[in-house]
Amino acid sequence: MSVYPIILSQENFTHRDELLYPFEERGLQFGDGIYEVIRIYHGKYYLFEEHIDRLFRSAEAIKIKLPFSKQDISNLLLELIEKNNVTSDAKVYLQVTRGSAPRDHGFPANTEPNIYAYAKDVPRHTELLESGVSAITKRDIRWENCYIKSLNLLPNVMAKQEAIENDCYEAILHKDGVVTECSASNVYLVKSGNIYTFPATKRILHGCVRMAVERFVADLNIPFIQEPFSLEDITLADEMFLTSSTSEVLPIVKVDGKQINDGRPGEITRKLQKAYEKDANITENITQ
Amino acid sequence: MSVYPIILSQENFTHRDELLYPFEERGLQFGDGIYEVIRIYHGKYYLFEEHIDRLFRSAEAIKIKLPFSKQDISNLLLELIEKNNVTSDAKVYLQVTRGSAPRDHGFPANTEPNIYAYAKDVPRHTELLESGVSAITKRDIRWENCYIKSLNLLPNVMAKQEAIENDCYEAILHKDGVVTECSASNVYLVKSGNIYTFPATKRILHGCVRMAVERFVADLNIPFIQEPFSLEDITLADEMFLTSSTSEVLPIVKVDGKQINDGRPGEITRKLQKAYEKDANITENITQ
Repeated sequence: MSVYPIILSQENFTHRDELLYPFEERGLQFGDGIYEVIRIYHGKYYLFEEHIDRLFRSAEAIKIKLPFSKQDISNLLLELIEKNNVTSDAKVYLQVTRGSAPRDHGFPANTEPNIYAYAKDVPRHTELLESGVSAITKRDIRWENCYIKSLNLLPNVMAKQEAIENDCYEAILHKDGVVTECSASNVYLVKSGNIYTFPATKRILHGCVRMAVERFVADLNIPFIQEPFSLEDITLADEMFLTSSTSEVLPIVKVDGKQINDGRPGEITRKLQKAYEKDANITENITQ
Repeated sequence: MSVYPIILSQENFTHRDELLYPFEERGLQFGDGIYEVIRIYHGKYYLFEEHIDRLFRSAEAIKIKLPFSKQDISNLLLELIEKNNVTSDAKVYLQVTRGSAPRDHGFPANTEPNIYAYAKDVPRHTELLESGVSAITKRDIRWENCYIKSLNLLPNVMAKQEAIENDCYEAILHKDGVVTECSASNVYLVKSGNIYTFPATKRILHGCVRMAVERFVADLNIPFIQEPFSLEDITLADEMFLTSSTSEVLPIVKVDGKQINDGRPGEITRKLQKAYEKDANITENITQ
């Protein structure tokens, strides 16, 4: 893959692989911006419209005026993977900040957003998708507007790092014992044939794969209950899984060192993985 | 003032006024970093050691290993204002991020922090210091570790912007009616000769001017009570003020459109302003 990023705010369609920013850039100094990570399979975007729609919702939530239409940015992102000859499994990272201005908390006047995007090869985590992963639990100390996909990710970073230091893939976050989501993914519990997950309020990110799972369960006739579950419920769970654009539908088989059920991915999780592969037109399936 | 920034992670002691960053920089993509704003009067740093100490506490809290000692960075910052011929009232902004690395929430291995600092002229807000300012109140929706001076400042930005749009200087933040601090300053209430302010827990920034105020009140024999006050208490306050490195000790004379007491800066606030000017060796005083 060549490096052909789009940097809308510097020189349109530049080939540079670095950003030249003044010291006073609001993404860098305040995390005053938003982003999307869009999955690509076989050179084609997956859940593309969902990501573009969410980008616009995030921008509106923090009052950034995007200088393009949904059609414009879609065309640019399509051009990005075309010019990079992306034909394999990859991702595109797209970021929008409020722009460059003398440092001051209030919004600067007459400032254009800084925008860039780049593509990267990302193979599927096939081994983990088959075996499942371990997770720790950790208090959710984040701000109240986690539905905004913003660049304020320090608590997520710290939680993920703690998971890694405990040889785990993810950190399951909870407020007073009530599970919200993971550091970089949504999380679900299966009990007696029902899927439970935190409702899509302001407290969690409304994941694009979560939206896809809502479609899958409708087709599969699996009850999808948007009610919070607790740390105690985890000890009695039949299955658990998480979802994100790079993790797909990933079984959780161990939490805080204790197995979920028999420690193997469950039946409903497998059905959703299969539905995912079908929906994303993935040809080399891990499911049968 | 010339532009002579320090950019430790690019070229030591460069004169460049822009940063050349790869797309994947952790300050830019996660807000994974810390900062300080240090006040300068007549070309001399004020509360210098307090800021350096806090920088090291913030770094430790998010597990960034600073590649310099307190003495090293102090010497560099002194050199910065010397080479810039800073002789007036100014500020230095210093930022440290975890560094440049392929985007992944977990900490990158073998990555050096990106560090830069620059100086800017900042005159005192003498008119506001005399007249006092207005504030709005707003729910504190921030994360739980506000004692860390991190680059995750989006909720602060949004609160400050709302204050500005309401012709106010600051937003007083509260959790369920209990006042914590402002969007970019600590806040205090005076009642019956006592000063009340939220205790220095993880919920608020431990301001360097707040530390100075603690010294002043000891000298002045004014009771300084680190107990939270409520929105209701504000309606009965004798005086209110806020503190920060650029705001100094700034009277608040109106909150949500209602005057504090007679709408003029109070006696204790004036005493603290005077103590501040003396402590900072300011020669053109607003106080008598």
